[in-house]
Amino acid sequence: MNILIKNVLLDGVVTDIFIENGTILEISPVCTRRADKIIDGRNKAALPSLVNGHTHAAMTLFRGFADDMPLKAWLEEKIWVLEAKLTADDVYWGGRLACLEMIKNGVTVFNDMYWHWEATARAVRDMKIRGFISAVFIDMFDNNKGREQIALNRELYALSKDYAPYVTFTFGPHAIYTVSRESLEWMRDFSAENDILIHMHLAETEYESVFSQTTYGLTPTAFLDSLEILSERYVGCHGCMLEKKDTEILGGRGAKLVHVPVSNLKLAVEKIFPHRLVQEARIPYCFGTDGCASNNHLDVLETMKFASLLAKFCSSDPTMLPARQTYLMATQTAADIFRLGKWSIEEGLSPDIILIDLMRPEFVPNFDLYSDMVYAANGSAVDTVICRGEVLMEGRVVPGEEEIMTRAGEAAHNLVKR
Amino acid sequence: MNILIKNVLLDGVVTDIFIENGTILEISPVCTRRADKIIDGRNKAALPSLVNGHTHAAMTLFRGFADDMPLKAWLEEKIWVLEAKLTADDVYWGGRLACLEMIKNGVTVFNDMYWHWEATARAVRDMKIRGFISAVFIDMFDNNKGREQIALNRELYALSKDYAPYVTFTFGPHAIYTVSRESLEWMRDFSAENDILIHMHLAETEYESVFSQTTYGLTPTAFLDSLEILSERYVGCHGCMLEKKDTEILGGRGAKLVHVPVSNLKLAVEKIFPHRLVQEARIPYCFGTDGCASNNHLDVLETMKFASLLAKFCSSDPTMLPARQTYLMATQTAADIFRLGKWSIEEGLSPDIILIDLMRPEFVPNFDLYSDMVYAANGSAVDTVICRGEVLMEGRVVPGEEEIMTRAGEAAHNLVKR
Repeated sequence: MNILIKNVLLDGVVTDIFIENGTILEISPVCTRRADKIIDGRNKAALPSLVNGHTHAAMTLFRGFADDMPLKAWLEEKIWVLEAKLTADDVYWGGRLACLEMIKNGVTVFNDMYWHWEATARAVRDMKIRGFISAVFIDMFDNNKGREQIALNRELYALSKDYAPYVTFTFGPHAIYTVSRESLEWMRDFSAENDILIHMHLAETEYESVFSQTTYGLTPTAFLDSLEILSERYVGCHGCMLEKKDTEILGGRGAKLVHVPVSNLKLAVEKIFPHRLVQEARIPYCFGTDGCASNNHLDVLETMKFASLLAKFCSSDPTMLPARQTYLMATQTAADIFRLGKWSIEEGLSPDIILIDLMRPEFVPNFDLYSDMVYAANGSAVDTVICRGEVLMEGRVVPGEEEIMTRAGEAAHNLVKR
Repeated sequence: MNILIKNVLLDGVVTDIFIENGTILEISPVCTRRADKIIDGRNKAALPSLVNGHTHAAMTLFRGFADDMPLKAWLEEKIWVLEAKLTADDVYWGGRLACLEMIKNGVTVFNDMYWHWEATARAVRDMKIRGFISAVFIDMFDNNKGREQIALNRELYALSKDYAPYVTFTFGPHAIYTVSRESLEWMRDFSAENDILIHMHLAETEYESVFSQTTYGLTPTAFLDSLEILSERYVGCHGCMLEKKDTEILGGRGAKLVHVPVSNLKLAVEKIFPHRLVQEARIPYCFGTDGCASNNHLDVLETMKFASLLAKFCSSDPTMLPARQTYLMATQTAADIFRLGKWSIEEGLSPDIILIDLMRPEFVPNFDLYSDMVYAANGSAVDTVICRGEVLMEGRVVPGEEEIMTRAGEAAHNLVKR
């Protein structure tokens, strides 16, 4: 499959871009190659696509079902009650809705942790985006449950080959207060042997810190380090409660972090992500939306605006997370974390590409595209999405979107009634 | 002009809405009246339009020109340098761009403070929305300047009749550190005599607090109260530094506030708006975007998400500013502040109306329209805007929008080059 994008704005210059099987073969003012598909790039800007570093895709089904509640009641009375009733079919349609929503917002890569692993994997394959998918691993310190979960994860890892290249298997140990030391040690070893990423909630709440101190006499990070599970394959999400000694440990081990600002604010966590400490420790980090029960939108550009502005406010420094750096974190840094290679629109590279519609008021006067993307635009400015060399959206239309919305809506309403 | 909206979702029920000269005459399942204009409301929800409580419209021209800078350098090296060169024509096109952007985001009422008053008034009249427009009043404690400003404001007040019903004249004393006591006293009296709103930056920064204590030995609010300028006509914007005694004073005087969260975060103000104190003092408040140099988008729905989530986080209480209350604050409370009457879609009332496109992923499964509007949607979900009984946007198209974007873009780029 060849794609030729004509007359698109790239780094301030109008150019043509020719893509063959996902790789950019030519960037030149007038490309004369023959293409299967020609896209009119006039009044559009080309940028590398966005990465969603942390979500629970199928929780789109719970959007707006329970908001404005204290965390404990929200989980126990609402979310867990619905999750207990979830079928694989529900997760499949919820997952497809999430993929649709991410495509509409220029996101082609996401890092997921949820129930019914294979349903999400099918959704990702059918939507043709890139999913890093983990099964929620919770054993509640019960050896039998731990063994079951280990067996399941071995099975899913083997199964994941069927979903390549769309799906990459990852481990999803939920958190230090729901997973036993033994299970974590098993994941550590299996991850090292098979080069598998470990996706985990880390230092999200005061509750987690207190649990860790009481149970292990250590911070969550120090406890994990004592198990030697922290490595360049470890992706910790949230990180609100991290202290200096924690960021030093994470930095020393080459671990990665994902900042999830919208969810943290909505659930009123006790502290906010310590950007300065994380930057001083040179920990690579990107942004995640979290699931739709605590955000409630998978718009990574919106999350980036929250992240950048909140970093300025909480650091009392308006120069923190400037626009261009913020865009690079959500693209190149995230691509590094998920080992996708150089995520930039250059000849010989294979990033996913989004085209931005500049004929919108929020792009006037367009002094600085990165500023406009991070501070003025939202995901609705994305006109076209190209993932792995395939056009997933053009003119904001994703083929089959009405069926996905209908089926996911039915699944959600039936779930509540069941 | 008659408008008939067919089969639209209103409060969860599919209905027809018939509007004559801006007033809703009939809401019924099947309206058989003849209309000049019929709008297909299928898969859309009708809601009262949004109010932008604080902005500087023509600063759209500065969008993306200077971000990520400390406040003082940003103002002195960038913003004031451009503002010194602004012509009335620049402000006219910047103002039209702002109106276009607000219409695109479902905003039909805004509260403005800027230079070249009449240029903004013309822009509002030509765009047919509702502008509460003040001229920036700054005398820097210079008697001659104060007299000039007073003469200008008398003149603009008289002139404002020519722009009715689109434009309402208001006073715009910039802040207690830029306007003399004598000028404030004159505005107090003229405002009382002529029933004019006073739109002012209040308790925005630590600098303002220190200035007030040093100069007057009082907080900004207590100083203003000592002048007896606080009344039900007083609209204070920002309010980040307000303390308990201040909110008690404001509440006692019937004054109003506007919360401006995005700008406050971006400029990294020292403290955040004290929702709890303001609510305890029963001060009506709504939301403002601020100008595009410090936001950089006039999307009030986005501002509402920031406001609601930040209120939860800063109060350590996820039940703060729940979705429905947040929507009502941006509509009914704001309409009360600007004395627009009952801002609700009911027979006999005359609110402006927006239609929301529900066929978007972020409205699936649509358990709660207010939750979806505040936490999931942004302004791009607005399909149709009806203001004062006229259709300003339909299917997201605003007549003449391309010319506005082109002219405003040219004005901004020429301004930088001049």
